[in-house]
Amino acid sequence: MNRLTLLDAMFLGLESPELPAHVAGLQIYELPKGKGSAWLHGLMEELRQRPPGSPFNEKLRPRLGGLPELVVDEDFDPDFHIRHTVLPRPGTDEQLRSLLARLHANLMDRDRPLWEFHLIEGLQNRRFAFYIKIHHAICDGATFSKWMSQSTTVSASGKDMRPIWQRPRVRANRTARTGLDALQAPVNLLATARDLGLGLGQLTGKLVRRRFLQGDRRIALPLSSPSTALTAPPTASRNLAFTHFPLAELKAMGKSSGATLNDVVLAICDAALRRFLSEQGQTPAQPLVALVPVNLRPPDSEEEGNLVTSIQVKLGDPEQTPGERLAAISASMRSGKEMYADIPAVASQAYSLGAAGLAALGSGLHLEGILPPPFNLIISNVPGPRETRYFGGARMLETYPVSGIAPMSALNVTVYSYDGELFFGLVAGRRAMPHLNDLKLCIDEVYEEFREELPGAD
Amino acid sequence: MNRLTLLDAMFLGLESPELPAHVAGLQIYELPKGKGSAWLHGLMEELRQRPPGSPFNEKLRPRLGGLPELVVDEDFDPDFHIRHTVLPRPGTDEQLRSLLARLHANLMDRDRPLWEFHLIEGLQNRRFAFYIKIHHAICDGATFSKWMSQSTTVSASGKDMRPIWQRPRVRANRTARTGLDALQAPVNLLATARDLGLGLGQLTGKLVRRRFLQGDRRIALPLSSPSTALTAPPTASRNLAFTHFPLAELKAMGKSSGATLNDVVLAICDAALRRFLSEQGQTPAQPLVALVPVNLRPPDSEEEGNLVTSIQVKLGDPEQTPGERLAAISASMRSGKEMYADIPAVASQAYSLGAAGLAALGSGLHLEGILPPPFNLIISNVPGPRETRYFGGARMLETYPVSGIAPMSALNVTVYSYDGELFFGLVAGRRAMPHLNDLKLCIDEVYEEFREELPGAD
Repeated sequence: MNRLTLLDAMFLGLESPELPAHVAGLQIYELPKGKGSAWLHGLMEELRQRPPGSPFNEKLRPRLGGLPELVVDEDFDPDFHIRHTVLPRPGTDEQLRSLLARLHANLMDRDRPLWEFHLIEGLQNRRFAFYIKIHHAICDGATFSKWMSQSTTVSASGKDMRPIWQRPRVRANRTARTGLDALQAPVNLLATARDLGLGLGQLTGKLVRRRFLQGDRRIALPLSSPSTALTAPPTASRNLAFTHFPLAELKAMGKSSGATLNDVVLAICDAALRRFLSEQGQTPAQPLVALVPVNLRPPDSEEEGNLVTSIQVKLGDPEQTPGERLAAISASMRSGKEMYADIPAVASQAYSLGAAGLAALGSGLHLEGILPPPFNLIISNVPGPRETRYFGGARMLETYPVSGIAPMSALNVTVYSYDGELFFGLVAGRRAMPHLNDLKLCIDEVYEEFREELPGAD
Repeated sequence: MNRLTLLDAMFLGLESPELPAHVAGLQIYELPKGKGSAWLHGLMEELRQRPPGSPFNEKLRPRLGGLPELVVDEDFDPDFHIRHTVLPRPGTDEQLRSLLARLHANLMDRDRPLWEFHLIEGLQNRRFAFYIKIHHAICDGATFSKWMSQSTTVSASGKDMRPIWQRPRVRANRTARTGLDALQAPVNLLATARDLGLGLGQLTGKLVRRRFLQGDRRIALPLSSPSTALTAPPTASRNLAFTHFPLAELKAMGKSSGATLNDVVLAICDAALRRFLSEQGQTPAQPLVALVPVNLRPPDSEEEGNLVTSIQVKLGDPEQTPGERLAAISASMRSGKEMYADIPAVASQAYSLGAAGLAALGSGLHLEGILPPPFNLIISNVPGPRETRYFGGARMLETYPVSGIAPMSALNVTVYSYDGELFFGLVAGRRAMPHLNDLKLCIDEVYEEFREELPGAD
């Protein structure tokens, strides 16, 4: 039995048919040599036999006047969770995207363990895919990534098959609370409340000082982002798009200007989104604002679940060269991080929950077009395994994150590193962004331009 | 532009992730001679080209302080509505059921025209299927059946292909209101209100008179049905089961006792459900109660949309022979119909909305187990075409209704007649009825027993 944390519960409380709160991963594999459909069917049979471990065997139980808890589902139904799908011929990547967009739009059954696993057969060029969907109330990107790594192997021998739901051992206890949930533990309530109060005070002080006294224009003030086509009321259907680039090249782009990989991702997304919007006749004069989730775990922490906050990062100005844009965003990011430095986790989480709550409120009251959106898109970076991975002897070729969108912002770009590549998973509201794949094309173009124009990139 | 009626809007208002309010039809076809996967892919391409007509091109638009209306969706997206799915090999009926259970559990996107069409490839024995899902706010069973008939042909030539969304002509105007919605038309508001008041008074008077003065124990009083495993809180996932029998045999079963086809269906469902429950250790001492929807259209009416009410029918006693059970149910049904005879449509609709509202209220307050359920299951009978039908030259072999479940009652059995057979579509909450297919087996057994024991049946 595990209590949910405040943040876990927020992902349940803010969820609606228009804003499902699950995250997912797509893994694309190559069939082992000499294996075909019969091998996949055998794999499927074997998967159904694997028993789930915590939290994959647990379902929600509401508690009167408290946060819900997770209890073992005594009627666990493997046929419900483990699914087999076949793409129509010829099995193109576009057909896969279209299938995933539908699967990703569907709410999960809250009366069952909050995950689904889909084996997808029939992808062109001897490939198959896994689509793994888990509710955000159960895990954040870092935990998802850890589970994905644990469920694949570094050897091609195919002996160590362990699907994501078959947990390696009893997981770390979730009671070691470092975030907002420390507020719930009476023993240090006073100390935590003091941290929260002081921390929020420090944050506000820093914000005002940096922005107005020191004239730091790279700080994103609340409600300072422009309204764009992405600031639309949320609707239930989704579009997906995927692309990937060599990790080393992306890192090299930032090298000469001291920018991080993350800065380069933000700059490419920013330039691409500006181009995409301008092709639709939209040219926001102000910088766009990205919400960037930040993992709050200390290095080497074993803690699972949700332990994130987020920074609002002001992106580049309308007309900038790749170098200028990257420098501006790198400065914004540093400002944002410095804002949170030395601030207790409890306060930074409260501040970022405030931004999410504001967006939810704005969306709930249909204030799109009246209230400026707290941010224009989410850009998230989740580190994955560095070396080639296998499942049951099949080599993992590509792996894309498929995340969720937030209220008042119809786009999420999450990147995931694996085996020397950085994989971009784009998720958008289908009504607000019916031509999401055009944004993917803009990202590909901008990537080439950055590679040509940045000094360190070649 | 069409206003929704009160009943239409009720199907939207009472909808939740646990209680989706759509209805669906499953059609199973045989591939034309010499045709295979390539032909199906061509069919799919052709279907995508067919433009939608009203209401298949219309989406909801909320109106402040009024019922929503339907307006043309200017960004109609055929790829969203028209979908292609392939079953994994070997493509058994069980795999089809499992796929449909998932598709049927998913809410529809309220920001788009409220329908989905799925072509399902890969069914064993040279078969393929259509699964057509439409929101109940747009149509009831009778309208669905009419649209299904219009979208198939009586000739095998394959020239007249017209999918369900390609409407034959401008449909009948929905303003001719005979039900509860007449209340909205100011011109006859007073007359309608008088009808409603008088009618509800008559209904109550009849109920009291028949039950208590005349001692008619076959009348179902509100809140008189026993609690069973079906009276469970609704959950999001579904189980489906299908069976079918010769129509002539079912009619013959009722013949000697003057029972209708509908009475026979109710009696078979009742006996089968009692057996199913008793195998799980449940033996309700009181009769079960079925909610039976009734089409309010005068014969030959062209009116589309929702125009139904429903009767609560007391089913048989625990231990009865097929003949006794059929006679008892036939008497209940007559009592129920007489209750509504000469009662204005507006009053019978209000009464049955009251029962539905009571169930929704009970479920919303989690009163399962405290409040007796207003009914135990829904049993619905929708007449379909009598002669063999074709689509694009493929012969329709079977066609099953896939309806929705109601609050406080986890089971819906809808039957649909076609080409000399009666097709049973069972839909249940998967948590309340994890072994729904066992109920299908009970129905098959009971059918055989009825056939052996009823005088007219052979």
